[in-house]
Amino acid sequence: MTVDECVFCAIARGQAEASTVYEDDAVVAFMDHRPVTPGHLLVIPKAHAVGLEDLEEGLGARVWRVAHRLARGLRRSSLRCEGINLFLADGEAAFQEVFHVHLHVFPRFAGDGFRIDADWRLRERAELDVNAGAVRAGLAAPGQEGEQR
Amino acid sequence: MTVDECVFCAIARGQAEASTVYEDDAVVAFMDHRPVTPGHLLVIPKAHAVGLEDLEEGLGARVWRVAHRLARGLRRSSLRCEGINLFLADGEAAFQEVFHVHLHVFPRFAGDGFRIDADWRLRERAELDVNAGAVRAGLAAPGQEGEQR
Repeated sequence: MTVDECVFCAIARGQAEASTVYEDDAVVAFMDHRPVTPGHLLVIPKAHAVGLEDLEEGLGARVWRVAHRLARGLRRSSLRCEGINLFLADGEAAFQEVFHVHLHVFPRFAGDGFRIDADWRLRERAELDVNAGAVRAGLAAPGQEGEQR
Repeated sequence: MTVDECVFCAIARGQAEASTVYEDDAVVAFMDHRPVTPGHLLVIPKAHAVGLEDLEEGLGARVWRVAHRLARGLRRSSLRCEGINLFLADGEAAFQEVFHVHLHVFPRFAGDGFRIDADWRLRERAELDVNAGAVRAGLAAPGQEGEQR
């Protein structure tokens, strides 16, 4: 898919329908049309990036700041909001469905029907230390800082 | 619970056991001891904040930047990683369990057992527009910018 065919790029250009709540020169936020709860927002950079690999770090921080403000706005809105989740899916294996990076911000309340499930067993310190070592090696790997500005 | 009793504050002070992968003057990242997948990380500000309401905006952006780098590190590590999720739970209704704000960063791969479920029905534009109006009103509400710097 090219940038021309990307629905979120079209929204960023004002060429596709969206219920927008915030816009600046670099970031736009609008309602998810398949919301987990009423008020579910998506925050995107206007510039196309597929995910965290090709998202410029400073632009990512701007997306985050808008999400933070929106979370505070949701708590001050008339929408039901007893809590907030932020969620980002980077890659198909992580449940990404639109390949223009987007940060979900959605209100939560008791009985809202949102569920997560996983195998959350407590792990041994030795296992965690081994995995920490693997992450540190990844942080030091070539290409880690390549896209960062 | 006071800050003195907060387990994440204790980790930030180096007074509780953790498998740390990154630390600077403001942020620390360590392995979740109940990981969704091997490599599951938590990124926290060292300064105590319960959630998005009392987290200073610039500090939040620093937490985000570290999470972004860790996501890139996970993809360059030896750990299985076909995708990445970022997740933040703000408030008990949003599944927050430790009341020191933390951003989850975890690798994903096919068959990893992580599940999310919700009622994702497509909603009418009129309904989305009403909710967008409610969010914009919340963004303009008193207190929205109060904690932001």
